[in-house]
Amino acid sequence: MDKGDRVYNFSAGPSMLPLDVIEKAAENLTNYGGSGQSVMEMSHRSKEFETIIKDAENDLRDILKIPGNYKVMFLQGGGTLQFAMVPLNLMNKSKKADYIVTGSWAKKAAEEAAKFGDVRIAASSEEGTFTYIPTVKREDFRADADYVHITLNNTIYGTHYPYIPDTGDIPLVCDMSSSILSEQIDVSKFGLIYAGAQKNVGPAGVTLVIIREDLLGFATSSVPTYLDYKIHADNGSMYNTPPCFAVYIAGEVFKKIKSEGGIAALEKENIKKANKLYNYLDGSKMFKCPIAKKDRSLMNVVFVTGDDGLDKKFTAEAQLAGLCNLGGHRSIGGMRASIYNAMPMSGIDSLVSFMRIFEEENGR
Amino acid sequence: MDKGDRVYNFSAGPSMLPLDVIEKAAENLTNYGGSGQSVMEMSHRSKEFETIIKDAENDLRDILKIPGNYKVMFLQGGGTLQFAMVPLNLMNKSKKADYIVTGSWAKKAAEEAAKFGDVRIAASSEEGTFTYIPTVKREDFRADADYVHITLNNTIYGTHYPYIPDTGDIPLVCDMSSSILSEQIDVSKFGLIYAGAQKNVGPAGVTLVIIREDLLGFATSSVPTYLDYKIHADNGSMYNTPPCFAVYIAGEVFKKIKSEGGIAALEKENIKKANKLYNYLDGSKMFKCPIAKKDRSLMNVVFVTGDDGLDKKFTAEAQLAGLCNLGGHRSIGGMRASIYNAMPMSGIDSLVSFMRIFEEENGR
Repeated sequence: MDKGDRVYNFSAGPSMLPLDVIEKAAENLTNYGGSGQSVMEMSHRSKEFETIIKDAENDLRDILKIPGNYKVMFLQGGGTLQFAMVPLNLMNKSKKADYIVTGSWAKKAAEEAAKFGDVRIAASSEEGTFTYIPTVKREDFRADADYVHITLNNTIYGTHYPYIPDTGDIPLVCDMSSSILSEQIDVSKFGLIYAGAQKNVGPAGVTLVIIREDLLGFATSSVPTYLDYKIHADNGSMYNTPPCFAVYIAGEVFKKIKSEGGIAALEKENIKKANKLYNYLDGSKMFKCPIAKKDRSLMNVVFVTGDDGLDKKFTAEAQLAGLCNLGGHRSIGGMRASIYNAMPMSGIDSLVSFMRIFEEENGR
Repeated sequence: MDKGDRVYNFSAGPSMLPLDVIEKAAENLTNYGGSGQSVMEMSHRSKEFETIIKDAENDLRDILKIPGNYKVMFLQGGGTLQFAMVPLNLMNKSKKADYIVTGSWAKKAAEEAAKFGDVRIAASSEEGTFTYIPTVKREDFRADADYVHITLNNTIYGTHYPYIPDTGDIPLVCDMSSSILSEQIDVSKFGLIYAGAQKNVGPAGVTLVIIREDLLGFATSSVPTYLDYKIHADNGSMYNTPPCFAVYIAGEVFKKIKSEGGIAALEKENIKKANKLYNYLDGSKMFKCPIAKKDRSLMNVVFVTGDDGLDKKFTAEAQLAGLCNLGGHRSIGGMRASIYNAMPMSGIDSLVSFMRIFEEENGR
């Protein structure tokens, strides 16, 4: 990928997309594939768009090896709406759900679910400022819980589960917003996976939901129609007008992944990228990564100097050098390099070089 | 506007967008305004995107002359989610709401609201296959109704209110999905206006909501957070990641409208465009518009030949001639020409010419 006049965008999301996908979209923007229309203008009931959304689903099924007894949906409302849709659809027997709280988003998910039923925090790393992932065993969950909820990768704190919790027969629900498509996963271990698109999938405005079929059909009549998974599953994400353009870009991203070795190839590259950065951090006298080694995220690398003023200086100078959005989440400060699939190795190299020089110039 | 290799897209939505807006977006797609990023990749917390969303709101306020005591929001989920959000937020005292049913969408809105409270159909034109708009007086509404709901323009049936119902002190809620920005409106007559973007505003995936401030803050604690208007109003549509790219395109449409004489100029042109088509239909021996003259839509012109086979032949031949998506809604058949703001007069001229020739060649 030629960087050209583009910056390296380390934003936590929305963030970088593959340049060739954007370039192809630009070429097609007034006239998609000879249709005489932009994808933004196409009827969602047209043959052209039906092909786009079906191909997107099939390619996603392919690259994630999604079993046949799972439905795939392209919805709106982001993780925030999923925080409500999950309990409104899945709290269907005991009205109990167990949540593991490993960061701000996991906590928000639990708080939202508590509006609708009996939520218990089965484990939390809050007392350790979310710098690690708790180890949880099957016995830690209530046997009659309708589901267990985890957040696989914690965007703000830079952690990632080093294991998939064993929940026995209890469906495992997973917010995969900031790690989906970055690593190989065994979909069959989950009852439901959801992910906002704006990290590895596509532009903000579309949310992926992958749900095991036996979990459909439990929304009560008091649940808003849009919030009933079964409605969307039965209508192939076309109950109402989907976010067509965002679905199209996501589909192009899936095609690219498929043609370039799939998730296995991406995962290999992501490990290389993250290791380069973590190795530098672990050897640095100025920068530290506060996260337990086994729980480190491949996607969001957090680090600090231990000096607020120096953190701010670093972030500001990096911005001017075209290494953008390296500030940590406004709730915790410090620095964070989000290095999603579309961040090229050259972006990591540039960042490490910049850090090395900054450390030399500002070291004591 | 140069048609080039583009078709005239008469789809009911998503539908045509201004070509110059799409062309400008294409030019900026890999690098927006020298930022080194696509709008699709920008952090929604970045200065660049904050400018985009604030400008979009301000320009919309300007072109619709939205009073200062109204909040403007860019949400997700389309009209379908609004069908639930309206009652969940506005059924706040008597839990009663009166709906006027003038088409399939109005009926769906009423059915959804009935999940959450006492819904009465104050008037309906269903017995006349929705070919007209009922005349409703203030006395037709329950005095203690929390709101009255109307659908200003009926996309499927091609009708439009020739008046704004007088509801006295009862807030009037209006689904303006298929007429917003096409004509001048007095926002102060409404308590809440909502509109899916995919007709006159921008690409599918963003929903406009304009709400009078005194109607905010009534969602109960059992309402999903994403469905609480106050959450979005208090956070400037940035409680969670908005559909950034769709907001950007909508903002570009607003800028264009502002620079080209505002809604007044568009309305004038829309009247000319619709009249040209209706005049032809009213003089035709083959094609008929079944809608009462006073209630005809400026945006969706429905017509039939009275012969199903002939309707299908017409739609198919028009498609081949680059006059696309002229089939009526799958629920009623016949033909429908949706002529939103971005449909140029040349599209109307081409359609009328084509109809004239078709009538000559197929007439009896």
